[in-house]
Amino acid sequence: MKLVRYGKAGEEKPGLIDDEGNLRDLSKKVKDITGDTLDAKTLKMLRELNPKKLKKVEGKQRFGPCVGNIGKFLCIGLNYSDHAAETGAAIPEHPILFFKANSAVQGANDPVYLPRNSKKGDWEVELGVVIGRKCKYVTKEKALNYVAGYCVVNDVSEREFQTELTGQWTKGKSCDTFGPTGPWLVTKDEVKDPQSLDMWLDVNGKRMQTGSTKTMIFTVAEIIEHLSQLMTLHPGDVISTGTPPGVGLGMKPKPVFLKEGDVMELGIEGLGQQKQKVRRDK
Amino acid sequence: MKLVRYGKAGEEKPGLIDDEGNLRDLSKKVKDITGDTLDAKTLKMLRELNPKKLKKVEGKQRFGPCVGNIGKFLCIGLNYSDHAAETGAAIPEHPILFFKANSAVQGANDPVYLPRNSKKGDWEVELGVVIGRKCKYVTKEKALNYVAGYCVVNDVSEREFQTELTGQWTKGKSCDTFGPTGPWLVTKDEVKDPQSLDMWLDVNGKRMQTGSTKTMIFTVAEIIEHLSQLMTLHPGDVISTGTPPGVGLGMKPKPVFLKEGDVMELGIEGLGQQKQKVRRDK
Repeated sequence: MKLVRYGKAGEEKPGLIDDEGNLRDLSKKVKDITGDTLDAKTLKMLRELNPKKLKKVEGKQRFGPCVGNIGKFLCIGLNYSDHAAETGAAIPEHPILFFKANSAVQGANDPVYLPRNSKKGDWEVELGVVIGRKCKYVTKEKALNYVAGYCVVNDVSEREFQTELTGQWTKGKSCDTFGPTGPWLVTKDEVKDPQSLDMWLDVNGKRMQTGSTKTMIFTVAEIIEHLSQLMTLHPGDVISTGTPPGVGLGMKPKPVFLKEGDVMELGIEGLGQQKQKVRRDK
Repeated sequence: MKLVRYGKAGEEKPGLIDDEGNLRDLSKKVKDITGDTLDAKTLKMLRELNPKKLKKVEGKQRFGPCVGNIGKFLCIGLNYSDHAAETGAAIPEHPILFFKANSAVQGANDPVYLPRNSKKGDWEVELGVVIGRKCKYVTKEKALNYVAGYCVVNDVSEREFQTELTGQWTKGKSCDTFGPTGPWLVTKDEVKDPQSLDMWLDVNGKRMQTGSTKTMIFTVAEIIEHLSQLMTLHPGDVISTGTPPGVGLGMKPKPVFLKEGDVMELGIEGLGQQKQKVRRDK
């Protein structure tokens, strides 16, 4: 299933995308797509619906973040061997964790605003993992049992805020609008192997990132195992699992950063696409 | 006013502590104490109530986190010059920011659980600042206008997770139960000067931390100014503003860490006290 939240920001309704690509309304079946909706029983109920019997939503719709009321937005840094190489960083021993403020989360195609003092805005296409069941101290062998589904994340970053404002990456990751998430939450039954998904990102039509989840240093299962040793993961938590090569910071002969008017487009195999215009806070 | 949330975890009701120290029920006046309750109008309405006319709640009650549904739990690191010295770190140029997972937040007197693999649990008494009004790009001169009130936070930390698990402090700050917050949210009209509050922390009855918010490197107003350049602060966000000297990591001749059975007691002038027993996850 491709679950979505559509409508005005803050007033999104639940929906699904049927096999013909039509948007169908789910508001009579569930209140919203949040941690409360992602349990196996509710997903089974939704899966057994006949989409053709659900109200078709006509016209162009905005998609909000594909999960509402996200508890924790956990991000893994430097998780692709080739991306670690391009930034000059060593291969980490454990998954690097930072948080993105959940106030940064927004819809897949909402504009991205560079903060007033931003000079080094950058892009990062990432596989987002949506937790469906509470878990703690799980092994990697069982970790995927706790996943509800997957989505596209653009882990938009401000490199000066991230590395030059005295420590801790989160400053460059948590600016408002820096977390486009969606458009769809694709339930895991539709993702045969999360470690074999192609991904890409264009800026102004030029391909910048090309990668595959095959080159992750830590797999989705290993990440969940590690994080769940530290803290409980709850339904509706999202883990963004790192980015492949091709970020602006790694460009040669010199870094390239986002400017007003740029357009980012990105996608992951089977999980849909995002498109964001870049603007600047006044 | 001293606002509280009392009752079983996850089912807390709003209340206030009257001048005689009695707990009075507020559930007929507001749904909960969250970001939605902290606007000036609601606080004025609550302030104008006659506490004696509110139902007195008898018996010993558990206090939950004094703010419900916390959006962001922002923490400032190394913000006391004397604490920076004890850890051997340089005085930071800007406030150091990390996030504590909001799933770590709990009541003031709930037990603290060390994770299975934890060897270096530590304590940190901190002034918590509760945001009452949405703000972005504010100056330090106006920053305190956006504060609803203050509370005690124990920024419980796992030093090995924080510094030896490959980067980013948040790993050692986000374990379940590592965020006792409260007991009271003391509205700012009762806190004459947030930069002149004595604070202390005992472990097993022995004084470990003694400090005052006077020695903060960045004041509450400066922290809000800085953070609001990076992201919007929302009502119900909490900022924990760093800890004074005396943490276990800084003990001489060698560090001292928490063990099962230890008792932490801590408090800040005018903001109440906390007490936590230390247990270990099975």
